[in-house]
Amino acid sequence: MAFSRHIFILALVAGCLLPSGVQALWPIPTTLETGMTALKISPSFSFDVQIEDAPSDLLDAVAESQYYLENDKLGRLVVGRGANDTTALASAMTLSNLTLSLTSGATVDSISSEAIKPLGTRSEEYALTIPADGSAATLTANSTLGLYRGLTTFNQLFYYYGGVIYTLIAPIAITDTPAYPFRGLTLDTSRNYYPVSDLLRTLDAMSWVKINTFHWHITDSQSFPLEVVQYPEITINGAYSPQEVYTASDVQYIVQYAAARGIDVLMEIDTPGHTAIIGATYPDYVACFDAAPWADFANEPPAGQLRFALPEVMNFTASLLSDVAKTLPSSYFSTGGDELNTNCYTDDYPTQQQLNSTGTTLNDALDTFTQSTHGALIAQGKTPVVWEEMVLDWNITLSNETIVMIWISSADAAAVVEKGFRIIQAPSNYFYLDCGAGEWLGDDPTGNSWCDPFKTWSESYTFDPLANLTEAQYGLVLGGEQCLWSEQSGPQNVDPIVWPRAASSAEIFWSAKQPTGAALNVTEALPRLHDVRYRMVQRGINAIPLQPQWCALRPDACDLYA
Amino acid sequence: MAFSRHIFILALVAGCLLPSGVQALWPIPTTLETGMTALKISPSFSFDVQIEDAPSDLLDAVAESQYYLENDKLGRLVVGRGANDTTALASAMTLSNLTLSLTSGATVDSISSEAIKPLGTRSEEYALTIPADGSAATLTANSTLGLYRGLTTFNQLFYYYGGVIYTLIAPIAITDTPAYPFRGLTLDTSRNYYPVSDLLRTLDAMSWVKINTFHWHITDSQSFPLEVVQYPEITINGAYSPQEVYTASDVQYIVQYAAARGIDVLMEIDTPGHTAIIGATYPDYVACFDAAPWADFANEPPAGQLRFALPEVMNFTASLLSDVAKTLPSSYFSTGGDELNTNCYTDDYPTQQQLNSTGTTLNDALDTFTQSTHGALIAQGKTPVVWEEMVLDWNITLSNETIVMIWISSADAAAVVEKGFRIIQAPSNYFYLDCGAGEWLGDDPTGNSWCDPFKTWSESYTFDPLANLTEAQYGLVLGGEQCLWSEQSGPQNVDPIVWPRAASSAEIFWSAKQPTGAALNVTEALPRLHDVRYRMVQRGINAIPLQPQWCALRPDACDLYA
Repeated sequence: MAFSRHIFILALVAGCLLPSGVQALWPIPTTLETGMTALKISPSFSFDVQIEDAPSDLLDAVAESQYYLENDKLGRLVVGRGANDTTALASAMTLSNLTLSLTSGATVDSISSEAIKPLGTRSEEYALTIPADGSAATLTANSTLGLYRGLTTFNQLFYYYGGVIYTLIAPIAITDTPAYPFRGLTLDTSRNYYPVSDLLRTLDAMSWVKINTFHWHITDSQSFPLEVVQYPEITINGAYSPQEVYTASDVQYIVQYAAARGIDVLMEIDTPGHTAIIGATYPDYVACFDAAPWADFANEPPAGQLRFALPEVMNFTASLLSDVAKTLPSSYFSTGGDELNTNCYTDDYPTQQQLNSTGTTLNDALDTFTQSTHGALIAQGKTPVVWEEMVLDWNITLSNETIVMIWISSADAAAVVEKGFRIIQAPSNYFYLDCGAGEWLGDDPTGNSWCDPFKTWSESYTFDPLANLTEAQYGLVLGGEQCLWSEQSGPQNVDPIVWPRAASSAEIFWSAKQPTGAALNVTEALPRLHDVRYRMVQRGINAIPLQPQWCALRPDACDLYA
Repeated sequence: MAFSRHIFILALVAGCLLPSGVQALWPIPTTLETGMTALKISPSFSFDVQIEDAPSDLLDAVAESQYYLENDKLGRLVVGRGANDTTALASAMTLSNLTLSLTSGATVDSISSEAIKPLGTRSEEYALTIPADGSAATLTANSTLGLYRGLTTFNQLFYYYGGVIYTLIAPIAITDTPAYPFRGLTLDTSRNYYPVSDLLRTLDAMSWVKINTFHWHITDSQSFPLEVVQYPEITINGAYSPQEVYTASDVQYIVQYAAARGIDVLMEIDTPGHTAIIGATYPDYVACFDAAPWADFANEPPAGQLRFALPEVMNFTASLLSDVAKTLPSSYFSTGGDELNTNCYTDDYPTQQQLNSTGTTLNDALDTFTQSTHGALIAQGKTPVVWEEMVLDWNITLSNETIVMIWISSADAAAVVEKGFRIIQAPSNYFYLDCGAGEWLGDDPTGNSWCDPFKTWSESYTFDPLANLTEAQYGLVLGGEQCLWSEQSGPQNVDPIVWPRAASSAEIFWSAKQPTGAALNVTEALPRLHDVRYRMVQRGINAIPLQPQWCALRPDACDLYA
């Protein structure tokens, strides 16, 4: 074969000097060998699925891949956008086939089934080979999910100019497997509501960079847009309007849409804080409901938290969570647990009466409550997920299986891991997409964002998932995610505030290192991220430009010290 | 008549307690009297233009106003979105007509003609009266431009619920006139290109808040997207692609579209800095063209500035500017003049040879250059506009008529006014919409935005146009504008990064004070700005939510100390 390690290293070192398309791939694969030969996609190009009784979602994914191949029409990010490639293309061979197959002995199951398996048991790896001589390209994997990941890579390899779809870097050999099993994106659909179509579009974009978890913070104190069949009044009184609801069938549709794209939906019903709006239906269940001044009782308006010490509230919450959880195929469900404000209970008569009459503390009541809600979820076969305060601020008993989300600071990861829990890295100081947009509270014109500054893609990209951990603890890091909290966001800006920035964590937790084994590097990454962003725009995602187009067409020319 | 000063003051003080729609108006009118009577729009409602030979753009504006009236379908920003208004509406009178007329003796001219008159000679004032008894509403003005402003106000008064278009605050009496003649928005279409459709949509949104100037920073060092018939190569070599060009006919269409909406187009071809890309066509005219490291020669890449000391460059630039300016109906044209980096010329042989051979200094050469370019514009009947450095950093002779834009800091206004120039307030520390989005240069992951932090609408709203000036100088402040520079922006985020924030300056420079004569106040303004934002969304502008919807429906509930 014509490609060699030598050429690959040359491509990495020479970067922009080569007429190459290596910059196309995001996340960067585990191993990557490329050549310098032009190769065109044949007008009669076809995908050849060599799998008996191939699942329908794999066939759908193949059809989508074919659609992107033909319709991306992305010009290379060089001056002229491919106009100078016509000479190379005149004599180029054509590629007519990509064959997809599973490794021998692999179970044939749908992408949707593979995508929702427990973390650590999914096979996302694949191998992709594209010869330079026009013979068939091959994509192989141990699962349909792996094939799906390979298809997203295949699509990133091709550019368009003057009616020709092509690559300049054949032959290509890729083997690829994720460094971490969890690569997520959190979206808060409570502070402001996102129509279903915006979620579907976001899931599409997630799949293109191999994000595999949609962490859906679906409810909060401001609104409860989720329909729960057993508790219809919560939504009737808690959604912003009857139109701003995720019906049970919407949720099923979204979950299935996600799974077909290799994405598990980790739903979160945050408790016992972040629940004020439940008080609109069950005023007896919520302490300090809409109390003023809100700042005495909550981190943001409105105040209101579940009276978790009351047995009836505990039972209600356990039922609510398990009624929702049992409709979802995921193995995971988040009960939240962040920002519980104890001031809310200090003068709350029902809570204090209960604590006094039973001789328990607030901490012990929270322990009982959490064991009840988590017990109900575990009984449904779910693994509970919580925010870090449940481990760091409270002394409660959690199953060892519980997964803990780091958010307040990246510095907190070590303390959680020290307790033996598996973690997901979502630290606000690297990964909060809403930071830097200024104060959103009223009557505070000089106030800034609490988590200033804005997290650029490159700042996020410098995150080290294993910082401050011992090697023995590395296995406890399941992965990470960027988060969009929606105080100042909605369908109007979800694309530009999320993309392409959320691709940063997608690569950190898929690739971890360059194919050379070197650390990820912002300077190497930027041209590839431009490429991903321009491709997203071609597919209808309003991803922001990271730089003037002049820079995007000239790798490194706009570096600080260029 | 039923309304009274008493009711008006009550409405202002009671705010959210009233079932009122006063919060609808932005910018707030000069005087405003409202009642508490519900009034419905008749299904056969019509606009009655009582003007002989009414100009076609006025008739178009009336048709658009009718379209918005019927299609905005904006629910009131209260819990229930109007569901509680049905009782009041059951017995409400219906409004069947709005009559439009000019004051006696007024000249009948098109909106487009009125909109491009010199600053200070346009009449934007109007009076709008809506009786509570169903008799015809009246809109009167001294010009069609004034009528157009009144129509935008009329549309903001009405809400929708259950098939009914209505107000709850009849009778209404408004007289309105702008405090400042210049209310602008700057958009940079060079760093990244915006399709024409995005500019038209932005002009629509500008018109809704009575912004009257589109300051079009059309070219810069990165790209030259403007077609200049006399110099086609500049665009062929300077636009990002043949598709990313504003053709001469595009410009005419945009200018006419703007004028019909009461908006003058102030075009800027920034010189002699910010011109690197001209070097792609005229390498002899540009010093330090794409020189490295760029940071030695320019504030951002690429380096490159006109060799303004050379007579042929002076003549070329004067021709270029006047060739463009003469195609535009505006009385104003900006020659820019910011961020001229003298390092670029230190070792530039052609410049130094010219200075040495003529015994002139760089300053004197700039003086000659500017007098030449400005002279060419003045000969075309244009008033030159420049950025503040032309006055503060250089000792050059400018016409007294020159208008100076403040941008580096609001603190610089006094020094410019001290020299007797009229100014436009565009200070980066209040009005730059791009601030706070982090570093865009490559290889600088910890870098922040140079003009951090993000300017929230409320921070911008606290700007005082007359700060540090003496009363005798107040007349030199023509107005102001917010600016979007496009290093990290494009059509993907223009709506959410501009709206509703750019409405801040629109109100500052239209209203200056509340109808009570009190200073503008962020707490009073927020509910009205929510209203404007939600109406923009109804009309297809992706304006961001300023707060969770929970807050938008509950005025002041999310204030810092609520």
